[in-house]
Amino acid sequence: MGSYKAPLDDYRFLMHELFDYTDIAPRIGHPDLDAELLDMMLEEWATFIEEVWCPSNRIGDEEGLKFSNGTVTMPPILVDVWRQTIESEWMAAPCDEEWGGQGLPLFFRTACDEVAIAGNMSLAVIGALNLGVYDLIHDHGEQHLKEEYLQKLTTGEWCGTMAMTEAHCGTDLGILKTKAEANPDGSWSVTGTKIFITGGEHNLVDNIVHMVLARLPDGPEGTKGISLICVPKFLPDGNGGLGERNSVNCVSIEKKMGLHSSPTCVLDFDGAKGWLVGEKHTGMALMFEMMNRERLSTGMMGLGLGEAAYQNALAWAKERRQGRDLKGIKDLEQDADNILRHPDVRRMLLRSKVNMEGMRAMGLYVGLQMDLAEHGEGEEQERAERLVALLTPMVKAHFSDVGAETADECIQVLGGAGYIRESGVEQYFRDVRIARIWEGTNGIQALDLVGRKLPMQIGRALRDLLWPILEFIEEHRDNPDMAPFTKPLYQGVRGLQQLTLLLMSEGMANPYFLAAGATEYTRYFSNIILAWLWAQMVLICLPKQDESPFHAAKIASARVFFERIYPETIALAAKVQAGHRSLMDYPVEMM
Amino acid sequence: MGSYKAPLDDYRFLMHELFDYTDIAPRIGHPDLDAELLDMMLEEWATFIEEVWCPSNRIGDEEGLKFSNGTVTMPPILVDVWRQTIESEWMAAPCDEEWGGQGLPLFFRTACDEVAIAGNMSLAVIGALNLGVYDLIHDHGEQHLKEEYLQKLTTGEWCGTMAMTEAHCGTDLGILKTKAEANPDGSWSVTGTKIFITGGEHNLVDNIVHMVLARLPDGPEGTKGISLICVPKFLPDGNGGLGERNSVNCVSIEKKMGLHSSPTCVLDFDGAKGWLVGEKHTGMALMFEMMNRERLSTGMMGLGLGEAAYQNALAWAKERRQGRDLKGIKDLEQDADNILRHPDVRRMLLRSKVNMEGMRAMGLYVGLQMDLAEHGEGEEQERAERLVALLTPMVKAHFSDVGAETADECIQVLGGAGYIRESGVEQYFRDVRIARIWEGTNGIQALDLVGRKLPMQIGRALRDLLWPILEFIEEHRDNPDMAPFTKPLYQGVRGLQQLTLLLMSEGMANPYFLAAGATEYTRYFSNIILAWLWAQMVLICLPKQDESPFHAAKIASARVFFERIYPETIALAAKVQAGHRSLMDYPVEMM
Repeated sequence: MGSYKAPLDDYRFLMHELFDYTDIAPRIGHPDLDAELLDMMLEEWATFIEEVWCPSNRIGDEEGLKFSNGTVTMPPILVDVWRQTIESEWMAAPCDEEWGGQGLPLFFRTACDEVAIAGNMSLAVIGALNLGVYDLIHDHGEQHLKEEYLQKLTTGEWCGTMAMTEAHCGTDLGILKTKAEANPDGSWSVTGTKIFITGGEHNLVDNIVHMVLARLPDGPEGTKGISLICVPKFLPDGNGGLGERNSVNCVSIEKKMGLHSSPTCVLDFDGAKGWLVGEKHTGMALMFEMMNRERLSTGMMGLGLGEAAYQNALAWAKERRQGRDLKGIKDLEQDADNILRHPDVRRMLLRSKVNMEGMRAMGLYVGLQMDLAEHGEGEEQERAERLVALLTPMVKAHFSDVGAETADECIQVLGGAGYIRESGVEQYFRDVRIARIWEGTNGIQALDLVGRKLPMQIGRALRDLLWPILEFIEEHRDNPDMAPFTKPLYQGVRGLQQLTLLLMSEGMANPYFLAAGATEYTRYFSNIILAWLWAQMVLICLPKQDESPFHAAKIASARVFFERIYPETIALAAKVQAGHRSLMDYPVEMM
Repeated sequence: MGSYKAPLDDYRFLMHELFDYTDIAPRIGHPDLDAELLDMMLEEWATFIEEVWCPSNRIGDEEGLKFSNGTVTMPPILVDVWRQTIESEWMAAPCDEEWGGQGLPLFFRTACDEVAIAGNMSLAVIGALNLGVYDLIHDHGEQHLKEEYLQKLTTGEWCGTMAMTEAHCGTDLGILKTKAEANPDGSWSVTGTKIFITGGEHNLVDNIVHMVLARLPDGPEGTKGISLICVPKFLPDGNGGLGERNSVNCVSIEKKMGLHSSPTCVLDFDGAKGWLVGEKHTGMALMFEMMNRERLSTGMMGLGLGEAAYQNALAWAKERRQGRDLKGIKDLEQDADNILRHPDVRRMLLRSKVNMEGMRAMGLYVGLQMDLAEHGEGEEQERAERLVALLTPMVKAHFSDVGAETADECIQVLGGAGYIRESGVEQYFRDVRIARIWEGTNGIQALDLVGRKLPMQIGRALRDLLWPILEFIEEHRDNPDMAPFTKPLYQGVRGLQQLTLLLMSEGMANPYFLAAGATEYTRYFSNIILAWLWAQMVLICLPKQDESPFHAAKIASARVFFERIYPETIALAAKVQAGHRSLMDYPVEMM
């Protein structure tokens, strides 16, 4: 098994028809990057991933990692694949031209993310971390850090990590214990133990650059006293080579449910030498900058692995024959009919497919808002910034949840074979599970949405988003072909407004109410964004459906979304409305 | 980790308060088995599992199986645990006294199942298969088979398997290829290859007895031409010992996502000697008899592993501190408050707990109906038989689905630690996944419910079930304390009636409609049974809540059910109503 083809047709549709790239290009700082070139680049990236990364995915899972004496040995095929990746120069594509990149827009990076993750999530994660560290040093590092690290990070010759979590704190970083003390030469000496460091040690590359959260001697308690220190495994020698080995060591690696070829390390910093990134005591804010981008990438993991699981389940289903069509035998020459004749098999596969199509549209939409937030001007730029803030927790939580559910549903399509490792689908299921936990669990995302993003500028981001949706509905209210889509969308938006008011008013008096409904509210809200995007896609496809099977299928997908996925919003609303009492009044001693 | 205590308090409540065992005992053939003795036996079984089975569970998962030259070597600790289990004579408890058992009622077996599964699912599965084979030979085998096998199976000295699936057929057994030809001595010679045979080969015991589905030379095509043959690994020597090695061999074992210490074998039967069980060409019916009991056991896997996951997640949550209570610091002396202060953590844990409590009540209810079906008289017996038929697919599908969702939610409670194998929770998540596939995927269960069980005797089983529910609601309509429970129950039952009518009427014209809504209908229906049981539990607990924390908590659990779980029925109904068109009209070539 292990069949995967990047969904290029879908991306073309999204980039050219749903989001008119040619129109947007000049507003996101890319007046000269034409649409055809972009298509071609995505095609090339897809070919590279399909041919070079994909074949390594199951082998990496089976072979896993070896740990001994502080060193982590990756499966040899991954070392080779990473070398080819460095040589391909693809990793640099989103980076600045000044540092060897091509400065491609962020929405393009989002598309590349999906494909890379589907190909090999263990490698994709390393790529995403590299870009995160690149961004931090690029935006906040002193000149010498830029010169020493950026070029190496853009190519992938060196790799980066985020070193935040400690054994006693993951979500609550304010209580971390790692310390940094000043050295006479202006550098810092970092001491402490970090856990769950993805890519903390491995033999893909010669050097690894850790972004470490630590408290300086004069750092106040809590999150306001944390600084960000850049601690390399080897100190740069000033000529682009490696100098002295730093005193950061891998103590152990975790045995995990999935991601078997991605090392999750315990790192011991024993007076390791590092350099401050950004101002003192601003570490949390900087890390959150990085984390917000990583949250989008983590959301895309749900999409990438869900899509890969779907494609594999579909390939299986197309071959598999069991039982007969309920309306009578379809294939007389065979002992049994193909299982795609069974409504329940279609239900599972189509929900999977449509979940992926919708999230792909939403992922690209957020990617474009990121570009607008970075390169746009005036009100458009500010609005994009607010939208990115509002939508990030939804992309992270909803995509990873739905991606995991999709991989699960795809196992079910295969029946017993789905539980067998050889089928490959169960690996996607195990791998995708971590995306719901990384970068702030999905419960934390939901709290971020209701507790921070909704009240931001007195709900301005929400209005930014809802007004165009209501306008869209109003505009197409008299179009009977659009009614099956705009009607439920309208009901959903009205429901969202009511739920939001309820959460905000009750939540002001009682934060438990807000927190108790946060998860379901986040999922409800995500469904509304998806419904809006689906309605827009239908509008584009209606006039083309007779000529183009692709456009006809897109409308069919929208029907599946509104009939088989979107109705969950009714139940979600009821759960939000139920409030917190049944949870918070429960006698803890009887749990 | 790995903390587990059997839910004895809950079972006592269910056996004595919800289902008045003392009242039922004489009607299920156990006039002399008193309630206290039953309690004591369950306690002893629980102690045995907690002390002997539980410690082997993670070790078994880590060590896994070794396969070489046709032999499967189990982790040594499991061989030792199984030996202790044989010596304990516990396995025989549900079997006839004639064959060394104690003839305990089936509902007691259901309770024992939950506990055993939570302790070590790989072993529990072997126990369940043994009982299944015991039942088949007991009910349908010739006297010599009974004498040769029953006693050995009751103790667990020999083990049993079901050998049904072949590479090209799992769900659709009518197309199987394994053949049996008559030997002059009245035995049969079986030839064919079976896959996915749980416990097909291992070194726990000396002999393994396979129940093989095969076609006799005069067997008609399809499911009506299949017979059941008993094929032992070693032929009995007539004196209770082992004779000649039979020509059934294990060709390979599968690498699976979970259940790492449960061998899933490919078995090659090469003219292996066997004996017919039951009449010729009745194999499918007999296998279904066995399978229905196994389906209940498989449902209980969701309950057992869900409960184990919950207990481990709760134990973690009680120790873990992150962040502060949203209403202000609760524990000034600590850096952070306990995570049970967070509504979203409670939401996950309480949904888990309440799902398990409800399913436990439903499992025991079905167990009692099984006893009534076997030992009851007249109309009560017939009604119980219908109810077992109706409820079996729901127990299998709903329990295994919800058990898997619960293990998933419990991983989330632990955050990053939940993804690490050491925590133990991820093992439950991997192990429970197979329960949704075994013994007919949950999609097949749903088709069984809507296609066979609902129309049975023109819907009589459904009426058997709904009338008492409606009577119950009517009886307590004026009780204001019951209103929060009976009102949603009433709405749900009305909805169920409407959905059933819709499915039956539309389904008569178009079987796709029926099949497209089957999965959601099954889940809807299961929720109604659970809601009814919850309302009954509340009624019992209301007068006792001031004195008894247990009874007060049970009412609190019911609130969680009705506010945080049951509302999913609204969405399920909408999906059933949506029908089949969006699925069946979808252009397959565009999938």
